[in-house]
Amino acid sequence: MEKSVLTSQHLPRFRAIVGEDYVFNDLEQRQHYSHDETEDLSFLPDIVIKPRTAEEISEILKICNAEKIPVTPRGAGTGLSGGALPQLGGIVISTERMNSILKIDEDNLQVITEPGVITEELQRAVQAKGFFYPPDPNSRGSCFIGGNIAENSGGPKALKYGVVKDYVLNLEIVLPTGEILWTGANVLKNATGYNLTQLIVGSEGTLAFITKIVLKLIPYPQFNLLILAPFRSLEKASAAVGAIFKAGYTPSALELMEIDALRITDKHIGGSSVPIGDDTEAHLLIEVDGNHLETLMAEMEAINEVLTHFDCGEVYFAEDEQQKSTLWKIRRQVAEAVKQAGYTIEEDTVVPRAVLPALIRGVKKLGTAYGFHPVCYGHAGDGNLHIRIKRKGTVNSLTDPGMINGLRALFGLVHELGGTISAEHGIGLVQKAYMDIVMNTKHFELMRGIRKVFDPNNILNSGKIFDS
Amino acid sequence: MEKSVLTSQHLPRFRAIVGEDYVFNDLEQRQHYSHDETEDLSFLPDIVIKPRTAEEISEILKICNAEKIPVTPRGAGTGLSGGALPQLGGIVISTERMNSILKIDEDNLQVITEPGVITEELQRAVQAKGFFYPPDPNSRGSCFIGGNIAENSGGPKALKYGVVKDYVLNLEIVLPTGEILWTGANVLKNATGYNLTQLIVGSEGTLAFITKIVLKLIPYPQFNLLILAPFRSLEKASAAVGAIFKAGYTPSALELMEIDALRITDKHIGGSSVPIGDDTEAHLLIEVDGNHLETLMAEMEAINEVLTHFDCGEVYFAEDEQQKSTLWKIRRQVAEAVKQAGYTIEEDTVVPRAVLPALIRGVKKLGTAYGFHPVCYGHAGDGNLHIRIKRKGTVNSLTDPGMINGLRALFGLVHELGGTISAEHGIGLVQKAYMDIVMNTKHFELMRGIRKVFDPNNILNSGKIFDS
Repeated sequence: MEKSVLTSQHLPRFRAIVGEDYVFNDLEQRQHYSHDETEDLSFLPDIVIKPRTAEEISEILKICNAEKIPVTPRGAGTGLSGGALPQLGGIVISTERMNSILKIDEDNLQVITEPGVITEELQRAVQAKGFFYPPDPNSRGSCFIGGNIAENSGGPKALKYGVVKDYVLNLEIVLPTGEILWTGANVLKNATGYNLTQLIVGSEGTLAFITKIVLKLIPYPQFNLLILAPFRSLEKASAAVGAIFKAGYTPSALELMEIDALRITDKHIGGSSVPIGDDTEAHLLIEVDGNHLETLMAEMEAINEVLTHFDCGEVYFAEDEQQKSTLWKIRRQVAEAVKQAGYTIEEDTVVPRAVLPALIRGVKKLGTAYGFHPVCYGHAGDGNLHIRIKRKGTVNSLTDPGMINGLRALFGLVHELGGTISAEHGIGLVQKAYMDIVMNTKHFELMRGIRKVFDPNNILNSGKIFDS
Repeated sequence: MEKSVLTSQHLPRFRAIVGEDYVFNDLEQRQHYSHDETEDLSFLPDIVIKPRTAEEISEILKICNAEKIPVTPRGAGTGLSGGALPQLGGIVISTERMNSILKIDEDNLQVITEPGVITEELQRAVQAKGFFYPPDPNSRGSCFIGGNIAENSGGPKALKYGVVKDYVLNLEIVLPTGEILWTGANVLKNATGYNLTQLIVGSEGTLAFITKIVLKLIPYPQFNLLILAPFRSLEKASAAVGAIFKAGYTPSALELMEIDALRITDKHIGGSSVPIGDDTEAHLLIEVDGNHLETLMAEMEAINEVLTHFDCGEVYFAEDEQQKSTLWKIRRQVAEAVKQAGYTIEEDTVVPRAVLPALIRGVKKLGTAYGFHPVCYGHAGDGNLHIRIKRKGTVNSLTDPGMINGLRALFGLVHELGGTISAEHGIGLVQKAYMDIVMNTKHFELMRGIRKVFDPNNILNSGKIFDS
């Protein structure tokens, strides 16, 4: 797709739609919307528009569709795969003003929300009514629920509660051609035509603009217990993960942190009271939740018993909310801490969880072979391993040939192990060069064909996931 | 699409692909495959083919695609929406010989299966290893897992455990143009490109032929408790459903049976020991399950307490496996029993569960207005109400104008209440005339467009869900 063809005469037309105050073409705003959380990548949009309603978005898209102007939908810009980067210039449409929770339906355990609501705020609002919306990415304090839908986000609770796609019942969308429609109905089961809802979830803003979201809620579990278990071997820690499930337990979180990740993070947050042993290679953070404390105690004891078979050191049991909060703070700060320590490239691999030890072993070998240093952590219970990579000098993973070769080898290994290249971050701009490792010509043909049905003029987030 | 153009010279070509013994054009076989469980509808196929492998199906489809021969994929023929009816003639491809469970992956809690495995057999095989595959339609003893995927089936456990779509991780499919491909990866989380897996689930055999299925399993819950609760008012019974969830409980089953349904079924199975009061209008069958019996007892007691606020009569508590089995037998026999009692037309409505009382009230009124007699039962916990309809004389719901008007009014009400026309049976042939009630021109345009991407020559289950 060629570069955008925006001219100064477009500004009044967009201002007529959304109001004078919500169309921006000054450098400061353009710079602010030129990047997300993906490495140091930055691309200037020509204009930033902040609409309030689906109808306004519809009017904007009609113009862009007619004139083939590239449009990049944007949530909070917390993405790690470059999905919100306006690499073709054109218009960034931010959902930040579409930030109302429209209805918490207590009778049906559903919430209807606009896309610009911060995920954690949504969680708190429903929790105040006794309900639980489990999927929360690491960035839950700043990311928008709309972006979560677009990326099919996960988070630490996915292994018990599922990911975003398991909670989305219905979506109001604006098609690139301007039509506004609902993809389904506000019901728990739906076998009425193709599942357009699930097609939009995870489509990374390439098929439609999401303007309203209906989510299923569940009752909030009353209790939870949390432990941090140290292992002398990273491999044994990851082997313990599979054993816990095989023994019949489904924790509500099962997170792995390599010792480097934990040390860097502990330092990053100014030191915690959490004991970090010298002979430790990795930790598992394990949570169970439910409505009966005694049952949970018994479950956690049984899980502890499983761990003893994997050369586990002394388990740290979070005694109160304060200690739990510290442990979660450490886990949630890992990405930011290791990024600041120079691990700037983040991969989001996922494999069947039983082969996690093989993946970790392989990653270390590839680091040696390709000259990068990896640090591993992530949602081990799902087989979802985040690999943060440090390489000498400032490296742009889109252009550095050594890094590209290393990543091809890494994703090749993931594919060999039965996994795939993104679990919850999406493909966006930075992973699309590796899609051929897990998809063939026909997959691309189908995806491109579907995209063309929704977006005949290829205006919406073009160049993400695959080249259109 | 015009009628098929099969000639006798096609037979040797298909026999060369699948073997002499597996291509049928005799009347007996053609008649057997001319109907499913949808009313009394029957359409003769020209040929029935029973392949063994995806490769064979690929070869067959290549011929059909080149010559535009209609193909109807078929599982066990237990469908209730006519999805397996070969209304255009042509070829029925039965999956009955593709009946192997290929691997139960105990390390990753997954099963890989062919489509022609009976759902209950699959459940038993994984249960023997301690695992649970929850979604089982009423026909689980005879339906095929492949058909379940095609229809996105539900069953009584859906309210706690989800429907088929929540368990499908990956599918091997054969495209109508002959290519064989996997839709995803055998992983629990996947944000790698469009969700082709979820697009195929519930597409009713119109996009691709499903040849291998990878399903997520969960640990089998060790205990369950079951009660049958009688209510003097049907409306109060359905109102109690919402109250149970609102109180924070998620039963593993929450089924509603109108008294007529229960009486007819009790008679149909030759009488049971289950007490049926004279002043009862409906029953709720409520199950809780989990790994801690005491917790379950407390939960069931709390649910009982909720029921007392809805004019509930004396609750029947199933004391042992025998009594549980009897209660489930009654519930599972309802559809067959009422069908034999003349309630031949089945609707599969779904609404947000809090408006179930309004739906039931409306259904009764519409019965009076349009001259039909409805009996209601189903998965009340999901808001999924099955409505079986009896009308004087032998009525074909595809052609009887009175019935068509009545059903339009019924689905109109469902739509008004925020619901949709199928929860778990699919649209198939018999519901497609009502799709315009819940979908607009653009929905159809998107679905037709997607279909064309997968099936450019419109050969695979053409005329189901919508007219191509």
